Amino acid sequence: MDIWPFDHDHGLADEELTARLGRPGADLHDLTTRFGLPVPAGFTISGQACVVFRREGWTAELDEAVASAVGDLETATGRTFGGRGVPLLVSVRPSPPVGMPGVVPTMLDVGCSTAAMEGLTAQVDERFAHDTRLRFVRNWAVLLGDVSDDRFARKLDDARAFADVAHDDELPTEMLRILVERFVSLAEAEGAKIPDDPFEQLRGALISAYEGWDGPAARRLRHRLGFESDTPLPVSVQMMVFGNAGRGSASGMLWSRDPNTGASGPSGRLRVRAQGGLTAPGVYADVELSDMVDRYPQQADTISGWLGELEELHRDAVGLDLTVEHGALWVLGQKIGCPVGTSALQVAVDLVAEGVIDRRQAVARVRAEDLEAVLHAQADLTGARILATGLAASPGAAVGRVVFTADRAAALAAEGTDVILVRQETSPEDVHGMTVAAGILTTRGGLASHAAVVARGWGKPAVCGAEAIELGDGRFTVDGVVVVEGDIISIDGGTGAVVLGAVSTSSAQRPDAFDTLLGWADEVRAGRIGVRANADTAADARVAREFGAEGIGLCRTEHMFLGEDRLPIVRQMILARTPAEERISLARLRLAQKADFVELLEVMDGLPVTVRLLDPPLHEFLPDLVELELRAAAGDLEPEDERLLEVAREWHEVNPMMGTRGVRLGWLKPGLYGMQVRALLEAVAERTAAGGAPVVGVMIPLTVSGPELAGARTWVDAAVQDAGVVASTVTVGTMIETPRAALRAGDLAEHSDFFSFGTNDLSQLTFGFSRDDVEGRIMARYLDEGLLTANPFETVDVQGVGELVRLGVERGRAVRPDLELGICGEHGGDPASIAVFCALGLDYVSCSPFRVPIARLAVAHALLSDAPRS
Amino acid sequence: MDIWPFDHDHGLADEELTARLGRPGADLHDLTTRFGLPVPAGFTISGQACVVFRREGWTAELDEAVASAVGDLETATGRTFGGRGVPLLVSVRPSPPVGMPGVVPTMLDVGCSTAAMEGLTAQVDERFAHDTRLRFVRNWAVLLGDVSDDRFARKLDDARAFADVAHDDELPTEMLRILVERFVSLAEAEGAKIPDDPFEQLRGALISAYEGWDGPAARRLRHRLGFESDTPLPVSVQMMVFGNAGRGSASGMLWSRDPNTGASGPSGRLRVRAQGGLTAPGVYADVELSDMVDRYPQQADTISGWLGELEELHRDAVGLDLTVEHGALWVLGQKIGCPVGTSALQVAVDLVAEGVIDRRQAVARVRAEDLEAVLHAQADLTGARILATGLAASPGAAVGRVVFTADRAAALAAEGTDVILVRQETSPEDVHGMTVAAGILTTRGGLASHAAVVARGWGKPAVCGAEAIELGDGRFTVDGVVVVEGDIISIDGGTGAVVLGAVSTSSAQRPDAFDTLLGWADEVRAGRIGVRANADTAADARVAREFGAEGIGLCRTEHMFLGEDRLPIVRQMILARTPAEERISLARLRLAQKADFVELLEVMDGLPVTVRLLDPPLHEFLPDLVELELRAAAGDLEPEDERLLEVAREWHEVNPMMGTRGVRLGWLKPGLYGMQVRALLEAVAERTAAGGAPVVGVMIPLTVSGPELAGARTWVDAAVQDAGVVASTVTVGTMIETPRAALRAGDLAEHSDFFSFGTNDLSQLTFGFSRDDVEGRIMARYLDEGLLTANPFETVDVQGVGELVRLGVERGRAVRPDLELGICGEHGGDPASIAVFCALGLDYVSCSPFRVPIARLAVAHALLSDAPRS
Repeated sequence: MDIWPFDHDHGLADEELTARLGRPGADLHDLTTRFGLPVPAGFTISGQACVVFRREGWTAELDEAVASAVGDLETATGRTFGGRGVPLLVSVRPSPPVGMPGVVPTMLDVGCSTAAMEGLTAQVDERFAHDTRLRFVRNWAVLLGDVSDDRFARKLDDARAFADVAHDDELPTEMLRILVERFVSLAEAEGAKIPDDPFEQLRGALISAYEGWDGPAARRLRHRLGFESDTPLPVSVQMMVFGNAGRGSASGMLWSRDPNTGASGPSGRLRVRAQGGLTAPGVYADVELSDMVDRYPQQADTISGWLGELEELHRDAVGLDLTVEHGALWVLGQKIGCPVGTSALQVAVDLVAEGVIDRRQAVARVRAEDLEAVLHAQADLTGARILATGLAASPGAAVGRVVFTADRAAALAAEGTDVILVRQETSPEDVHGMTVAAGILTTRGGLASHAAVVARGWGKPAVCGAEAIELGDGRFTVDGVVVVEGDIISIDGGTGAVVLGAVSTSSAQRPDAFDTLLGWADEVRAGRIGVRANADTAADARVAREFGAEGIGLCRTEHMFLGEDRLPIVRQMILARTPAEERISLARLRLAQKADFVELLEVMDGLPVTVRLLDPPLHEFLPDLVELELRAAAGDLEPEDERLLEVAREWHEVNPMMGTRGVRLGWLKPGLYGMQVRALLEAVAERTAAGGAPVVGVMIPLTVSGPELAGARTWVDAAVQDAGVVASTVTVGTMIETPRAALRAGDLAEHSDFFSFGTNDLSQLTFGFSRDDVEGRIMARYLDEGLLTANPFETVDVQGVGELVRLGVERGRAVRPDLELGICGEHGGDPASIAVFCALGLDYVSCSPFRVPIARLAVAHALLSDAPRS
Repeated sequence: MDIWPFDHDHGLADEELTARLGRPGADLHDLTTRFGLPVPAGFTISGQACVVFRREGWTAELDEAVASAVGDLETATGRTFGGRGVPLLVSVRPSPPVGMPGVVPTMLDVGCSTAAMEGLTAQVDERFAHDTRLRFVRNWAVLLGDVSDDRFARKLDDARAFADVAHDDELPTEMLRILVERFVSLAEAEGAKIPDDPFEQLRGALISAYEGWDGPAARRLRHRLGFESDTPLPVSVQMMVFGNAGRGSASGMLWSRDPNTGASGPSGRLRVRAQGGLTAPGVYADVELSDMVDRYPQQADTISGWLGELEELHRDAVGLDLTVEHGALWVLGQKIGCPVGTSALQVAVDLVAEGVIDRRQAVARVRAEDLEAVLHAQADLTGARILATGLAASPGAAVGRVVFTADRAAALAAEGTDVILVRQETSPEDVHGMTVAAGILTTRGGLASHAAVVARGWGKPAVCGAEAIELGDGRFTVDGVVVVEGDIISIDGGTGAVVLGAVSTSSAQRPDAFDTLLGWADEVRAGRIGVRANADTAADARVAREFGAEGIGLCRTEHMFLGEDRLPIVRQMILARTPAEERISLARLRLAQKADFVELLEVMDGLPVTVRLLDPPLHEFLPDLVELELRAAAGDLEPEDERLLEVAREWHEVNPMMGTRGVRLGWLKPGLYGMQVRALLEAVAERTAAGGAPVVGVMIPLTVSGPELAGARTWVDAAVQDAGVVASTVTVGTMIETPRAALRAGDLAEHSDFFSFGTNDLSQLTFGFSRDDVEGRIMARYLDEGLLTANPFETVDVQGVGELVRLGVERGRAVRPDLELGICGEHGGDPASIAVFCALGLDYVSCSPFRVPIARLAVAHALLSDAPRS
């Protein structure tokens, strides 16, 4: 069995060492041998044991190997595992190939037997022994016995309240003793028996680590990070040192730069008289590193020295996991690079300024998550009363007063009140309220629902499909809590949390480093792969251009149909009984659309704007059929509604996603597409006359065959000729969004100047997944079970959809080598998908305006991916 | 310009000659030069003129070329085109590459000018001149002027009634003269001016032929028959001979064998004093060939001689298009092979018996349509009052009394009354009425609607989506006609016609030749490609086996859930609030399913039965949500319905086709699939114990990934082990019905013993076509416009779906060479699709029981396709 002490000389390069020991294990090895820092002794059990366990369960061979390694550790430390005298306690720390905080937690104080309590008391005092035992019992019950930690936390709350103290370390020793008893019986009442044999404890901790590693959460994360599902888990076993050993003891993470802001100079804080680690939280006093300089100058100096050396070596901010035991410093681990967000950006830019790394290295180092964190307000959910959890539909946190109608939202917002619009589902008629709301909460609908799509497009926080919430008249109820209009709630679109009251949110201001770094990313991209935005209005386009979009890759003209002033005309067109009535409505729409296009083209002057002709089924512009039927049954229909009902029935579809949509609608109502193209060309003419340089592409959606596209193209060509616009400023292309379009890309290329891969619909059809229907229950189950490696609507499915895109690219270019190729599905804003599209040779990606910075960075990453990380 | 007289010596092989002259043109050439039969002189204008017309419209060059050819014809015949003296009249007959009767009609009597009337009168008599003129005016107005023929037919009806005669040729001459005037003014009132210039007439007839050839109907047929859309049209222009020239004149088709029964010996009838051709129908007396032998022995003898010679040459039944003019015989064309149906079958079998052709030639010669015609009752729509036309959902004719509910259908049928069940749409709750109805008529729903699918499965006639029909209370109204319960109507599922009253139908008895020929087809298939059936019940399976199915390729277990006694248990399972409640319902279902399986396996003993686990979304087993909502709004819900409503809302889906279905349901409700597999295995055990030889495959529907299938397979394997069934008698496989499954067939093959391509869903997803939604308006438009070459739900789309099937086959076999591959979509019963599947190397096709004979023949055709046709 491969078990190595931290000071073993492997003679391996970093990569091989990590493969053998895992990331934290390799760090402990490096810190011990390479840097000679004071790391408590220990050993790492390689993944081989995990493989054995998976195959045969816990074996005698494993017992022997572990016992022998513990024996060596006893010799090295001069202590006895779980024994009297000087007892050896250990931590059991999973060591995955990359940091996966919290997924498989670390177990501390293993070996804390009754016998060991005597030793701990003898060595320090009774209080220390009880405190350590308390931690051990609590961790064991929570991690191995599946007991809710709340119950222990509440007991401690009660104890502090009773003793009238602020921090756990101020509780009287007598109370600690009682708490130990309470904790043990609480654990045992829940079926979590605490073994007294130290080896039994160690075995339990190891088994728990292996089982956790093969549980759904860890497997899902492993898939997401691109590791094989059978990757084994190394585990480190290390002598405990005690931050809870009384005076002069503490633990915490200290950084070479401020981990929150990225400001230079060592920073961080230690938790006084506490053990470190993610487990066993408690209430303790903190001491800042800056305070330590005064009180413990020698230690502060030593720590600063270590941090400086490590930062120089790693050329990045570094954090050290430290424990101080009676004034002695111990190093338990390291972190390279700041946590997600502003700090990571700032450090990367500063390091370039300091000449430590170059611009490309800075670009390569900053993660998409860093930009996202900067772009969206962050909710601090600590202590929050979470009412319900819905789908994380659009990131960012929002706080505001509850309103239940769009009109009320508009009224309150006009008075300067922040509102959260709460609806069962949203529809085009709610748009005026959605625009002004701070956030949107719906109780139905998936990640592809109207609310979710609109909110993401606007970068507005939204939680959708929070089904636990029951909507009533002017109120909602959830789990017995009644929330009425005007009550304050918070939503966190990054986690789906709905919180009663206001949570604190961090601001979403863009630091200078943000634009600096993206400028460098653009240098990498220059002339290679473009980034455009999906924007439907001049307002969207302005945001997109502000964020660096190099054009509009997708302008959904239907969104122009949804304005309060437009919807009635659209309905008039649908309801028309005669061609003449239809023509009149179309003419009115044409004027409205033209004005929209003029504005849009003005904002995007000189940059390409791809306009997609109407795509959704017409019934999306009609009231809900069920609602109409109910009103009809109640005898509550106005005469004009009767006609609406009739038409809604006529256009009702069983599977609207695959029905009368896109170019099919164009063939059924040719006047519609003709109107749209005319409006666009008139706008082009007007902009040109005004001295502008409009560049437009007309995009035909949902094609499946060459003749279908050829026919549609003749309508556009005819309109171009009629309008007297210079033909060369107008290109015509199609979306590739059905599997057949990808397979027959050669036929389509004969009639196309460009393709834009619509990977949302392409994914729906390739899998047979209706997003509206599967994204709730099915997708979660499939990801948990590892049936899919990722949600294909978040990250493009390389093996299936990716192959269709590849065929589309190859077959399209074979017929027309200068075909312009882009992607405009939501995947255009997802870094992992962007890497796929770059590899497939697309010319640009297009994404929602707020994702443009992410895409600029992600494309640069893809292009840099050959270069080493630092 | 290529224009050739019929007696021109081209010196070309048959194929090249047909390419140049078209089929009828080549026949006229052959009959003239090769056989020396008395063919009236004429010439064929090659497709070149059609190409010119398409490009430039009618040109002076065309005028000149035609005039010159007519000049030659005048010389050859000694007549003057449309002139006095001996006038030359001509027929203008389109000459497509294969027979396409009626698509572009023949124009007769061209050149019948005022001047020619004088000549005709002089040559025969005034009656003849008027009769000919009458025909010309009527044809011109209908074919070129788009006037409804009904109006002329009604005038003739009135005239006969007035004159109290039975046949048109008995009308007094005076009345003919008046009719000519009435016809002319009727035509002109409708804007169809009759030109008097013979060359203008000829030009008009030619232009009409070219325009008709490029119209939607002809283009659609051209596509269907596999010709390029720009195939040009040759046209023959031939001197008229007159079957309406008075005594001793007649016209008609005479056959070497009975064209209706196939009985040997010349047969057929001539229409006395009438012109032939499809146009200008009228009411005439007929004379049988057998009668002619007595009355005109010489002519009868000559004709029999010709027919005998031609049959010997063509080794098939032959028909001659004949005109007798004052006792002189003229040949106007030929037909090789009997019309569709019994006769074609009988002739093929007889010719083998006579040693003229061999069995393989007989198999190759019989068409799928021949078998279909034999299998289904045929409606004779002549003179029928067609109320409405819906979708031709399931072939065959049915006559019965109208009923509006399934219960009423059951009640009347129990009394021995034939009923037609008329519903807006059908649902599982109507099944007991559908079973007993003679035919099914729905006013909504497409070819994939419940009614259509069920009816096709049962071989029961159905017309669906007859939207012109308005359903009321106990009645329906269409176009002012009110039909109440008990009225008799007829439906023709082959054309979609709904007829008031009873039409006469031909019987659907299978002649001996049917089974003889299919036996020969099986000899061709033997050991190569199998034919199985899609059958869900023992009754279906019995029909399938009777029709020669070699196994069940698809048993849809959901159909077992729909029985009147099952649906309540299924709903109980869906409504279950606790796992215990669910288990109880599942146990009850298991017993029911087991009994069904035992029956099915008994019927199919020794043959493979592939059972698909539950596929449709659960809400298909619930009442319609809108209906429930309406009842709820009306306060009309029982307490148990409240729960139904809640669950119906919960399971409601936006796009059910792509929602919680198939294996996804399996993952959400694992007990369901476990129950089904257990039921099946218990049935296998029972059958084995009873001395049977059950052979079963368990099929997992709608998979998209390897792990999804691997997991599902473990459930089956576990159940196999539990049941103690010999594992080798149970195979496990999957349907390939999503594009991703086809692309990832390699992954799926690792866990599959067989694949079955579900080309219905695969086609829906590849195109993004929801059958329910597009098959009505969109598909018709797309076929008319030539955007698709065929309805992809009738004939598999070779270029798109076919490529996915090919990839599925290749990738599946690469991983597992012995993988069994079949297809179970409705395409499995379509001959054109079967040819594709055979070429792709599938092991079997599976289709509805009534299509099994068609499939047996079509597979044989595909395997014979290298061999010459005769």
